[in-house]
Amino acid sequence: MTYDRNSRKAIELHKKLKGKILVTGKIKNLKPNEIKLIYTPGVAAVCEEIYHHPEKKYDLTSKGNNVAIVTDGTRILGLGNIGPYAALPVMEGKAVLYQEFGTVSAFPICLDTTKKDEIITAIRAIEPAFGAINLEDIESPKVLEISDDLTKLLSIPIFHDDRHGTSVVVLSALLNSLKLVQKQLSSIKVVVAGAGSAGYGICKLLVAAGCKNILVTDSDGIIYRGRRENMNKYKTELGSITNPKRERGLLYDALRNADVFIGVSGKNNLITPKMIKEMSSEPIIFALTNPDPEIKPDLAKAAGARIVATGSYLYPNKVNNALVFPHLMRIILDKKIKKITMELLLATAQAIAMSVPNKRLHYDNIMPDMYDKRIQKNIVKAVSKLLSK
Amino acid sequence: MTYDRNSRKAIELHKKLKGKILVTGKIKNLKPNEIKLIYTPGVAAVCEEIYHHPEKKYDLTSKGNNVAIVTDGTRILGLGNIGPYAALPVMEGKAVLYQEFGTVSAFPICLDTTKKDEIITAIRAIEPAFGAINLEDIESPKVLEISDDLTKLLSIPIFHDDRHGTSVVVLSALLNSLKLVQKQLSSIKVVVAGAGSAGYGICKLLVAAGCKNILVTDSDGIIYRGRRENMNKYKTELGSITNPKRERGLLYDALRNADVFIGVSGKNNLITPKMIKEMSSEPIIFALTNPDPEIKPDLAKAAGARIVATGSYLYPNKVNNALVFPHLMRIILDKKIKKITMELLLATAQAIAMSVPNKRLHYDNIMPDMYDKRIQKNIVKAVSKLLSK
Repeated sequence: MTYDRNSRKAIELHKKLKGKILVTGKIKNLKPNEIKLIYTPGVAAVCEEIYHHPEKKYDLTSKGNNVAIVTDGTRILGLGNIGPYAALPVMEGKAVLYQEFGTVSAFPICLDTTKKDEIITAIRAIEPAFGAINLEDIESPKVLEISDDLTKLLSIPIFHDDRHGTSVVVLSALLNSLKLVQKQLSSIKVVVAGAGSAGYGICKLLVAAGCKNILVTDSDGIIYRGRRENMNKYKTELGSITNPKRERGLLYDALRNADVFIGVSGKNNLITPKMIKEMSSEPIIFALTNPDPEIKPDLAKAAGARIVATGSYLYPNKVNNALVFPHLMRIILDKKIKKITMELLLATAQAIAMSVPNKRLHYDNIMPDMYDKRIQKNIVKAVSKLLSK
Repeated sequence: MTYDRNSRKAIELHKKLKGKILVTGKIKNLKPNEIKLIYTPGVAAVCEEIYHHPEKKYDLTSKGNNVAIVTDGTRILGLGNIGPYAALPVMEGKAVLYQEFGTVSAFPICLDTTKKDEIITAIRAIEPAFGAINLEDIESPKVLEISDDLTKLLSIPIFHDDRHGTSVVVLSALLNSLKLVQKQLSSIKVVVAGAGSAGYGICKLLVAAGCKNILVTDSDGIIYRGRRENMNKYKTELGSITNPKRERGLLYDALRNADVFIGVSGKNNLITPKMIKEMSSEPIIFALTNPDPEIKPDLAKAAGARIVATGSYLYPNKVNNALVFPHLMRIILDKKIKKITMELLLATAQAIAMSVPNKRLHYDNIMPDMYDKRIQKNIVKAVSKLLSK
């Protein structure tokens, strides 16, 4: 393999660190009398308390702050099915961000099985030590089924970042973009390229947010009610909640007069300047596939795109799940939220969008900085308000 | 529930801490350019490295330092089958000791199933992120079967603390006790009360260490080759490696002329002063059941016991697995040891025993202090020597 400079630096850093995470005790330099409290004999009474009052598990253990980042390694970044071992560096990286930005204790659970039933069985089995599950980089539609099944089976929340996290950050970006081009969510036409976890999540949230004219495309073109080719139950649902006029055609046809393109297709160079020229005035292009987007930002801009966002740090307007998951998980855990609802995601998206003050908002600055303390503050405020309703 | 003072303090401390463990990143206060290395985009190259060179998973991830502390909650401390939630405080406490004394990252995996096959399936599934498995407080003989099956199925070591850790610390205590009473392991008679995980592990290690005259008892008395009542395959094995004269009888009969009693029976007040008086000269009594031992040390001493050890901090000579597991696991991980062998356990037991210098060794001080730096140093030296053979 030949790697670019950043990649080589990344490999060197990982070699030096020998792994990025550590499980540590909250009390350091334990004294003998502390050991008698945190371990035998004192710990026995803590066990008995939980045995007799099961709800105390949240007060007396780390359960309420532990998240399992679960993958089977089938859809890692842009790399595809590389298996559970090669997936570890991503899951550890995510764990580091969870702690750093959300003070959440997340641990990688990389599963040595890709079978849906075995994945569900394993997650059900390990549930007791965790306050939430984060499904990560598992192939679709299997992961959507896993997520839905587990939501029914477990009493802890199943957060599916590729679906939920992506939908939130995309809606945030869209809300701020619409402010700039002065359009309304309820009257725009949006094209979503990609009908996997991200596409599914985005469409569901856009519909919940009031978007009425969405077309979703996959490799067979526009998804419509009644389509037979290359469908699954999630695409069937998309066909019923989008595309009210049952339009057919390819991505090219879908984009005509569209206000917004959202690319979560996994395909670089999927759209061309010509397609952008066919869009409505002041088109908004979110080309989110990593590492190479559906169209290069400079090409998109040259073709008339008013706002361009990508998933990459190389360009302005980085639409990045890391703006969402540490903060959203923090409040999910703190408030013991049991289900991920559309209301929760909507409130979070709005909170992130408003973390960019109006005076700072411009075409090349639609998203807040990851380090901006307003994000967490706004999410806490918005979700608390939602829960008090 | 009414609790004693230490128990109340333990509950208060756990309430204050809200759990004892944290998963953290090795790099704190991440800078944006570090995020590009530990997460996207840089991490992709690290994944590719592992995908193309699977052995690099040990160099580039935390796998080699992560241990899963796995329980199903069926045999927690002296509390019995209290389930996976009430088991959490013990597993977290163990994780804290692992990090504090062995710089090992251990994470509690409390399984919401008590079925042997499901436990094995779950552990096989989660293997990729872990460098070793620590089986903990699972009922016997199920756990012995799980441990044996997993040892065949997985390429990471299965450390069964109730079996392996206990056997090591007991042998250490015995080696030092024999120095004091000037007896030889090869010529003494040892009675082990209890034929669960601990009893099984102790007998196996004592035999490997050269002990020739062992009797094991359970609630049906002495185990002998050919016994029919209350047997399982592990007791059958014990019948064949101990009790060369096929003696029968109860614990009382077994103890006559015995040099050593090792109690891992789970029963308090199992032996009486009268029984100790029937033992050989200078009897050694390890009454290891917690929280209340097989006989109170003062009673045992009054009946003529020369050396008395327990599992409790209330008395001198605490025979405690915490002297073993953090240090042994450290070297298991560092040396990438794949199987727990008798040679490894023997070397570790000898190393712990010699951590009490001869001039400090006396009837009430047969074990090193947990904080003694010699323990880890001696184990590293002994195991390294073993591996270089």
